[in-house]
Amino acid sequence: MDGAKAPGDIAALMNEIGRAAREAARVLAQADTARKNQALTAAAASLRAKAGAIKEANAIDMAAGRAKNLTPALLDRLALDDKRIEAMAKGLEDIAALADPVGQVMAAWTRPNGLKIERIRTPLGVVGIIYESRPNVTADAAALCLKAGNACILRGGSESFHSSRAIMECLHAGLRAAGIPEAALQMVPTSDRAAVGEMLTMTKYIDVIVPRGGQSLVDRVMRESRVPTFQHLTGLCHTYIHSAADPVKARQIVLNAKMRRTGICGATETLLVDEAVAAAQLPPILDDLIKAGCELRGDAAVQKLDARVKPATAEDWDTEYLDAILAVRIVKNLDDAIDHITTHGSSHTESIITEDNASAAHFMSALDSAIVMHNASTQFADGGEFGMGAEIGIATGKLHARGPVGVEQLTTFKYKVHGDGQIRP
Amino acid sequence: MDGAKAPGDIAALMNEIGRAAREAARVLAQADTARKNQALTAAAASLRAKAGAIKEANAIDMAAGRAKNLTPALLDRLALDDKRIEAMAKGLEDIAALADPVGQVMAAWTRPNGLKIERIRTPLGVVGIIYESRPNVTADAAALCLKAGNACILRGGSESFHSSRAIMECLHAGLRAAGIPEAALQMVPTSDRAAVGEMLTMTKYIDVIVPRGGQSLVDRVMRESRVPTFQHLTGLCHTYIHSAADPVKARQIVLNAKMRRTGICGATETLLVDEAVAAAQLPPILDDLIKAGCELRGDAAVQKLDARVKPATAEDWDTEYLDAILAVRIVKNLDDAIDHITTHGSSHTESIITEDNASAAHFMSALDSAIVMHNASTQFADGGEFGMGAEIGIATGKLHARGPVGVEQLTTFKYKVHGDGQIRP
Repeated sequence: MDGAKAPGDIAALMNEIGRAAREAARVLAQADTARKNQALTAAAASLRAKAGAIKEANAIDMAAGRAKNLTPALLDRLALDDKRIEAMAKGLEDIAALADPVGQVMAAWTRPNGLKIERIRTPLGVVGIIYESRPNVTADAAALCLKAGNACILRGGSESFHSSRAIMECLHAGLRAAGIPEAALQMVPTSDRAAVGEMLTMTKYIDVIVPRGGQSLVDRVMRESRVPTFQHLTGLCHTYIHSAADPVKARQIVLNAKMRRTGICGATETLLVDEAVAAAQLPPILDDLIKAGCELRGDAAVQKLDARVKPATAEDWDTEYLDAILAVRIVKNLDDAIDHITTHGSSHTESIITEDNASAAHFMSALDSAIVMHNASTQFADGGEFGMGAEIGIATGKLHARGPVGVEQLTTFKYKVHGDGQIRP
Repeated sequence: MDGAKAPGDIAALMNEIGRAAREAARVLAQADTARKNQALTAAAASLRAKAGAIKEANAIDMAAGRAKNLTPALLDRLALDDKRIEAMAKGLEDIAALADPVGQVMAAWTRPNGLKIERIRTPLGVVGIIYESRPNVTADAAALCLKAGNACILRGGSESFHSSRAIMECLHAGLRAAGIPEAALQMVPTSDRAAVGEMLTMTKYIDVIVPRGGQSLVDRVMRESRVPTFQHLTGLCHTYIHSAADPVKARQIVLNAKMRRTGICGATETLLVDEAVAAAQLPPILDDLIKAGCELRGDAAVQKLDARVKPATAEDWDTEYLDAILAVRIVKNLDDAIDHITTHGSSHTESIITEDNASAAHFMSALDSAIVMHNASTQFADGGEFGMGAEIGIATGKLHARGPVGVEQLTTFKYKVHGDGQIRP
């Protein structure tokens, strides 16, 4: 990685990366499906062929990470082995197998004056992705952008720099094999944070910024970015056990929604339970969770049901733990649950457990979240589980992309108007 | 209009407007189509009943405008008479007649595990609209937001304050008739520019800002806004006469594209002509334009064809005149035309005149503009002409809304996931 640079150098470097990306995006926007897929499958082959070099590069990052005392969780995200490299290669092939959204006719109609209007799906242009130190994101994000006909500029966490660079070399081999300019996929070659500042203001060269990562990154992007962004806020997801809940479904779903994987944004962080069924339904659920290693923080009524529940503070209702901790609150009824979620939620994913369809319909209509569920685990909030193929993340903003951000969400559209000499009266 | 206020007062005032709008938006999101239409038709009736009061309020604005020496064009935009008030009332009824986008099932599918997923159109929430001193926009913009189930906060130009307030009273009468909270449609009651600053940072209460107006407003919004915006840049539209153009179509279309109305964003500002047909096709076109009162600014080759053409400077290729002025340039060929438009255009609307379909297809594919046309006048760049009903403007950004912003573009969506106890493996 480059050392410190003068601010002017960073600006010049990023400007050149942006200019080249814009130029490459114009070429890529015209590339047909076969060519894009050729690049993806050739890149997959290169990842397999270069697995040794990738592991060597990863070893450098891992050694530096250990020296920096990264947490075991971070080191685990950073680590690459043959299995993970194969998963990346397979991921590229899966993206090649997805339908190409570019060129799809989204709508077509003819006006009384004979003008034929088509709404056609097109690439966004240049996508900037700022992400944590996860080397696999380098491959996934670049491949999704490529499939949607976008150039992309990747700025990953500095701890994964060598690994990402080795992966990027394989992606470039794929681009070369397909005759697509290498500038279509670029990695920012410096860890200088000023480079992020440049990305956030390069409105001429970057069409959208996708921030992936912790709250401080997302906050910085939302505060500083002049480039439009896909908002990806916290996933403070709720599961709500309604008074008409089936106890078996409730028990299975809550355990899965919290504990299947605690570190993903679709994991449930707060459990709400109707007071009418709390005494009957909650004790076995709390017991399941504690046996699975989950710490429980509840209001006074919940603590009465199980002495192992710690007291919840006001802060707990607003916290995305991403860990084996669950906040539990007893609510009066459906409207009370909706109020709690509206006040404390992050508009990501909420699920109601009930056998009463009218209550489910009201819950799903009244809540303004990207994903609302009925009798299902919030852990299904995932592009793959939705059948959309790979995803870059779950967007919680309301504009353009909402929910899983997959290939289709990385496109825009244009109107084509076909006339025969029409003039406007 | 309120006088100057202390900055803290403005912040408190705007915070209260935002809080009330958010609350009203939650009610409005659940309002059915009949109720929203009732509000619109009752508001139309009120506009007709209160025409006298609206004209009195407008007379105050007009007198102040004359005292401020507003240009005749600005005074004309500001003026209201019975005909314009009737047009506003009719506009509200037309919006009532549009299909309600809210609740539409955009897509639905079932996963192998039995989860049924629906993508449902929903309101955006709270829309902030910042616009010039055109009283009719108060009615149009508010009605479009209402139909899409959104609350809105309107900040019009100060010169139209009394007129807009009188119109807003009619809109509130409509809301009352339908039992919708008046806070669903609010007008910022102060001309203090700090109020705009508050709107641009009220991410908690405003979901999207729509800027309508001149370049300085749009620049300020793009620079300062922390709230997502619908970009509405200049309409630097091009008409391109290809070597295979039909001369009759070219002549009709160019005159219409430039001169039908020069002040709208879909008016052509630059004419490009292939050198192979310039000598044959251009002279009558230039003559038509000059006879219609258009000033022409051309490159040396164009000036040779008509001595009345003034020399174009480099700046002309980058200028949206919104006036009876046209820049004219002779280009080598299709790729040269595409390069010119890519370099100088604003991604709004471009039209190619040609009988060669392959060239038209290449032009329409290669250009990254919101609207691309073949053998049609760029003045068709309009929501009404597209069959979308009324519009707030033409978006030239790539995210969410692109092209005409009508009722549908003022919505977002959510995913509803219907399960029967599914947990994620």
